[in-house]
Amino acid sequence: MVTTWVPNVSPTSDFSLANLPFGIITTPSDPLPHAAVAIGTWVLDLKALSAAPLFAAVFPSLPPQIFSHPTLNRFAALGRPTHRAVRATLQSLLSNAADADPRLRDDAALRAAALLPRASATSHLPMAVGDYTDFYAGYHHAFAVGALFRGPGAELQPNYARLPVGYHGRASSVVVSGTLIRRPVGQFVLPDDPAGAPVVGPSRRVDFEVELGCFMARGNEMGVGVPVEEAEDFVFGYVLLNDWSARDVQAWEYVPLGPFNSKNFGTTVSPWVVLADALEPFRVKGVENPAGEVLEYLRGREDAVFDIGLEVDLTTPEGDTMTISKTTSKHLMWSFPQMIAHHTLGGCPLRTGDLLGSGTISGPGGPEERGCLLEMTQGGKKEILLYGMDARTYLKDGDTITIRGACGEPGARVGFGECRGRIYSAEQRK
Amino acid sequence: MVTTWVPNVSPTSDFSLANLPFGIITTPSDPLPHAAVAIGTWVLDLKALSAAPLFAAVFPSLPPQIFSHPTLNRFAALGRPTHRAVRATLQSLLSNAADADPRLRDDAALRAAALLPRASATSHLPMAVGDYTDFYAGYHHAFAVGALFRGPGAELQPNYARLPVGYHGRASSVVVSGTLIRRPVGQFVLPDDPAGAPVVGPSRRVDFEVELGCFMARGNEMGVGVPVEEAEDFVFGYVLLNDWSARDVQAWEYVPLGPFNSKNFGTTVSPWVVLADALEPFRVKGVENPAGEVLEYLRGREDAVFDIGLEVDLTTPEGDTMTISKTTSKHLMWSFPQMIAHHTLGGCPLRTGDLLGSGTISGPGGPEERGCLLEMTQGGKKEILLYGMDARTYLKDGDTITIRGACGEPGARVGFGECRGRIYSAEQRK
Repeated sequence: MVTTWVPNVSPTSDFSLANLPFGIITTPSDPLPHAAVAIGTWVLDLKALSAAPLFAAVFPSLPPQIFSHPTLNRFAALGRPTHRAVRATLQSLLSNAADADPRLRDDAALRAAALLPRASATSHLPMAVGDYTDFYAGYHHAFAVGALFRGPGAELQPNYARLPVGYHGRASSVVVSGTLIRRPVGQFVLPDDPAGAPVVGPSRRVDFEVELGCFMARGNEMGVGVPVEEAEDFVFGYVLLNDWSARDVQAWEYVPLGPFNSKNFGTTVSPWVVLADALEPFRVKGVENPAGEVLEYLRGREDAVFDIGLEVDLTTPEGDTMTISKTTSKHLMWSFPQMIAHHTLGGCPLRTGDLLGSGTISGPGGPEERGCLLEMTQGGKKEILLYGMDARTYLKDGDTITIRGACGEPGARVGFGECRGRIYSAEQRK
Repeated sequence: MVTTWVPNVSPTSDFSLANLPFGIITTPSDPLPHAAVAIGTWVLDLKALSAAPLFAAVFPSLPPQIFSHPTLNRFAALGRPTHRAVRATLQSLLSNAADADPRLRDDAALRAAALLPRASATSHLPMAVGDYTDFYAGYHHAFAVGALFRGPGAELQPNYARLPVGYHGRASSVVVSGTLIRRPVGQFVLPDDPAGAPVVGPSRRVDFEVELGCFMARGNEMGVGVPVEEAEDFVFGYVLLNDWSARDVQAWEYVPLGPFNSKNFGTTVSPWVVLADALEPFRVKGVENPAGEVLEYLRGREDAVFDIGLEVDLTTPEGDTMTISKTTSKHLMWSFPQMIAHHTLGGCPLRTGDLLGSGTISGPGGPEERGCLLEMTQGGKKEILLYGMDARTYLKDGDTITIRGACGEPGARVGFGECRGRIYSAEQRK
């Protein structure tokens, strides 16, 4: 295992030398958002690095300002071969292997300028999101929600196994981890008055959804679809995603055009984009499709999902934290290449920075492996117990949800850091 | 009636002095997209105007480059009082009234530089669209489609009269009038095999939808809704919109998350944005809500929709044109202020340039006042007859749909020009 000369990188860190995820930061000395990679408890400030002569020496073909932009879009648009080469060069610069490039390691002034404690940096939304699409590819989630609403024997809609069901989400409400989320006011029908008139008020059923998010590196021409076997070349990288949902609003509004205000009050993503290449070693086959063979345009390589361990923490307003769910992203039945092939089948143009959500990821077992409270609590009927005497059906004001995700062995972990958000009361301003 | 000194402006022109819609053009002498207003068969090139000393004299508070950007977003973001003042000043510069500003009229060199035949300019998408949301506010459309799919007595879903139903559309596929639209390949179930396996192929049921589009001038802070009585201050202006739809794809994919590939292969808008102020004289009350009173957050002024006459032409591949529908936008049951208030109720942030579609606008009568072929043909069961022996259920390759819309008396018409698109075969490139 190749290790880094960067000090104090814990073997349990999500941000090992094998990872090097990209993000957008501001720092005390540079308040303009710009690019960095994370390693251990540090960031390598790529804008600071690009001010040094070393930058042109190791990246002769990169535009000199490429890491000075407020989003990663222009870097993403350079394409996967470039991302791969840049990541390999950065790995060499940060490695303590005998054949590694020593020029950053041995340059104390440059180290001081570019290698900064991560705690001193503020993370920002890494990409300008053109369009956000949310899929429904988590098999056990779709099955469980179908069982809840339609009963045994009718769990999956007829189209579910035939195409990656998805809907257009709201790009303007995609926010970076840490952004406060206001409990949405919405229109809904009270549960004890299902035939009654709708009311308007703060949602009583605010939920989270554990998802994987995928940022597009490049787009396709309108009218020209992306073949499934080429789709991975269009991917920049992955983040954790929490698709906050107001279940009472959703139940009332979603017929016939799908979720709207129940989903557009906030979608949180983790700040560090794990490049597609960093996840290559963790390919697995997803959930078996119960329909058997799919239509030809959806037939890609079988090991096209990733086995990323996912955990959800709920922190109460009092500050008690409990891990309420553990699952893995191998529970997806549709892969991102399949989603991309389907999304573009009719000619819809994807663009650099577009965000695709996987849909809620749940395991097949009990509440402790479910990706949302709707499933954990059987639609709000069974409380989940927290430490002490505390319990939840849906989220309370002041609750914080933190999603973590990682794969790989200690010392070479490829993780996402945190995707975190706290719900604040509809009655107050931030 | 105040008229213009601009030559040969027909009394039947959509682009009277009472209108002055804004758009983005390129010209033979200036290939960089920039702003203009339309008048008669002319455009007043605002970038060319802004190069003259007159510009700073009449617009002392406008940023000098405001009309040199490739979209109208920055101008829109200046807010309605500014749009109003700029339009009034341009009206004075173009008017032949005794008290009008003569400085453009009397400056032959500036006229030659800035007043250009519209036919010499190419129109572009007027706004950079952040998010596109499509509503379902056309009462007679919703009623007719419900009758088709659910039968008498169940035409409207329970939520229809309670909230403006809408869904998130696809911003990347919004294109300007004239852009060719490829017949989408999609996944659907054959009509003679409703229990059968889905197939993939070119859609057999490509339709248009006549809508009014609304561009946002400014946005709201995330978490803070827009009150219905303030919503009009957030509007920049209006366009005609054709929400192309693949009905076979839609029927198969839309449960439970709404339309997706059936809608994201193209949405066409007319190029000239009619400012909100230009439509002020044409306010009317919309369709009576069958539920009676709505919830308080949706109660705005009653005359909040516009009476804009709408017409749809179908031009066959052979070049024969027939007007297949005439209706009016007063058939909306929800107004744009209501849509904006509902959209932001839970805190969803709208941004400058966001596009809202009204939903299909149909009259209550026969096929000749319906806003889409789905209604005109009763779901493809009854052909509509064109000239000669020609007929349609859905669109053929090579068909062109042109939507026109206007209000006002001859000489002071406020119209939109054309929203036009032609379907080309899925088997060929453009």
